Amino acid sequence: MRIAIYGYGNIGRGVELAIRANADQELVGVFTRRAPETVKTLTGAPVYAADTLAARAAEIDVVILCGGSATDLPVQTPAIARKCNVVDSFDTHARIPEHFDAVDAAAKASGHTALISGGWDPGMFSLARLYGAAILPDGKDYTFWGRGVSQGHSDAIRRIPGVVDARQYTVPIPAALDAVRAGDQPELTARQKHLRECYVVAAEGADLSAIETAIKTMPNYFADYDTTVNFITAEEMRRDHSALPHGGMVIRTGKTGAKGEHKHTIEYRLQLDSNPEFTAGVLTALARAVVRLNAKGDTGCKTIFDLPPALLSPLSAAELRAQML
Amino acid sequence: MRIAIYGYGNIGRGVELAIRANADQELVGVFTRRAPETVKTLTGAPVYAADTLAARAAEIDVVILCGGSATDLPVQTPAIARKCNVVDSFDTHARIPEHFDAVDAAAKASGHTALISGGWDPGMFSLARLYGAAILPDGKDYTFWGRGVSQGHSDAIRRIPGVVDARQYTVPIPAALDAVRAGDQPELTARQKHLRECYVVAAEGADLSAIETAIKTMPNYFADYDTTVNFITAEEMRRDHSALPHGGMVIRTGKTGAKGEHKHTIEYRLQLDSNPEFTAGVLTALARAVVRLNAKGDTGCKTIFDLPPALLSPLSAAELRAQML
Repeated sequence: MRIAIYGYGNIGRGVELAIRANADQELVGVFTRRAPETVKTLTGAPVYAADTLAARAAEIDVVILCGGSATDLPVQTPAIARKCNVVDSFDTHARIPEHFDAVDAAAKASGHTALISGGWDPGMFSLARLYGAAILPDGKDYTFWGRGVSQGHSDAIRRIPGVVDARQYTVPIPAALDAVRAGDQPELTARQKHLRECYVVAAEGADLSAIETAIKTMPNYFADYDTTVNFITAEEMRRDHSALPHGGMVIRTGKTGAKGEHKHTIEYRLQLDSNPEFTAGVLTALARAVVRLNAKGDTGCKTIFDLPPALLSPLSAAELRAQML
Repeated sequence: MRIAIYGYGNIGRGVELAIRANADQELVGVFTRRAPETVKTLTGAPVYAADTLAARAAEIDVVILCGGSATDLPVQTPAIARKCNVVDSFDTHARIPEHFDAVDAAAKASGHTALISGGWDPGMFSLARLYGAAILPDGKDYTFWGRGVSQGHSDAIRRIPGVVDARQYTVPIPAALDAVRAGDQPELTARQKHLRECYVVAAEGADLSAIETAIKTMPNYFADYDTTVNFITAEEMRRDHSALPHGGMVIRTGKTGAKGEHKHTIEYRLQLDSNPEFTAGVLTALARAVVRLNAKGDTGCKTIFDLPPALLSPLSAAELRAQML
């Protein structure tokens, strides 16, 4: 199974390593909009100019798109789905329906298979929500994130004048987790579910108090949360905050019985040292499914909800039944 | 979607309640080998003689088989798959391949769709193993059960002379869970993973010490575990041990990175007040998928690995993308 990587940031590097860990997959190369000779890959994989992808389509079974959801993927995924099978990790939840429609039209017209919104949220967490609701219809689910680095919130802090660098950790609040796990189905505000913990490197002479206020009052990102702001040095940032851990949990609680007398809790929990490398593990498993679907003539846009789980595994159906069922 | 229940024990009663909780499903009736007039259902559903099922096949979209794996299902599932779509919870892991083949032949020959080994283990735990291994190929998984009642172990104790009643709880050992969750990939013996906690009502004048020895030395069931035996009264058994709680967790830990420097933990955990009622929730969701597959002409035997997750949900694909992805 020959895979191409399109876009070479954190996720792209993770996918490169994930392909190396899968015996049935090989990396055709990395396609980048930068000058190829300026990009050095982790495994020595070849680097090509992004606009040469179509010319190499015959050598590629599936392209894993590793760009951003804000501006890259809405354009790239439909465009590349006209030439190749594709997998992306589009994660703007509210815009998934329109992205799906655009990719579906492109893939169907050209006979390709596309998978959008792969990863862990959307992705594995979405699956946990679907299965949980199907099994326990009289119930409620909760998604918690963290403890982990939110890139979006870190970027938002970096845009404040006087900020040189920033890292924001999203932290689930233990009391909220306990109440949910107990099956009480509490109504929780954003503030009750998560804390926001910020580490900031300020420019010399910057007004720290103004930065702190700008963070804590920022609408959507921080105003609705209890937020802590810690000013640190560039050296401390490099030493203590260069990793990209993340994780979280989807918890479904529900009731069954003649009078709802039995409580049940389903919890799907991730604890990840490297968010992009774990995401890459999901994307490469999904790429396997996409190639198999296309080989069966099943084209158009899919989500993880549409994929028989067996297609994600390198094992045969008989091996799965004997070893994993 | 019209569902029949075949066999009316704990699981059958759970399925009856689960169907009532699903707006898109209705219960045709309960089919039993007992005299129908002696069986009273929880919801007032009609009761029919087991041998009248074939005559009513036209009124039934899918039959959920609620018999035991030892002797009932190996015979019943293939036989009924010749007449109807079926779902069972066959849970003898080692015999799944031969059961699959028998059911597949019967269902394919008659144009029906069958799902075997539904429930939570096999079932949801199997899915957790498959997805975990596909995402983190360089890893290892562990399944823990409990704290919960093992019917098989309880039955084994009841067969000892002098035992009137017994309940056995399987209990995961916290130190083992901690080591696994830390990502150390320990090698664990059966004894290191689970304790066996037994509550026994003995006959008047029975030799308690002989019973305790018989339990603790019983091969396969108890000899390889640390086992505690508590003698209680019939009244205490009724008061404290009449529920059937269960649960457990599948934990996959794995490494990624250029040199395996990043650890990841995926944990799927269940905590269930009623094992049969939760199992029933899974079976009714699977029944929904089976009816939909059959309507598309996809016949033969399936497992949960073969089912696109969306088929388990009452929501449409567009609703799922908008609400759950």
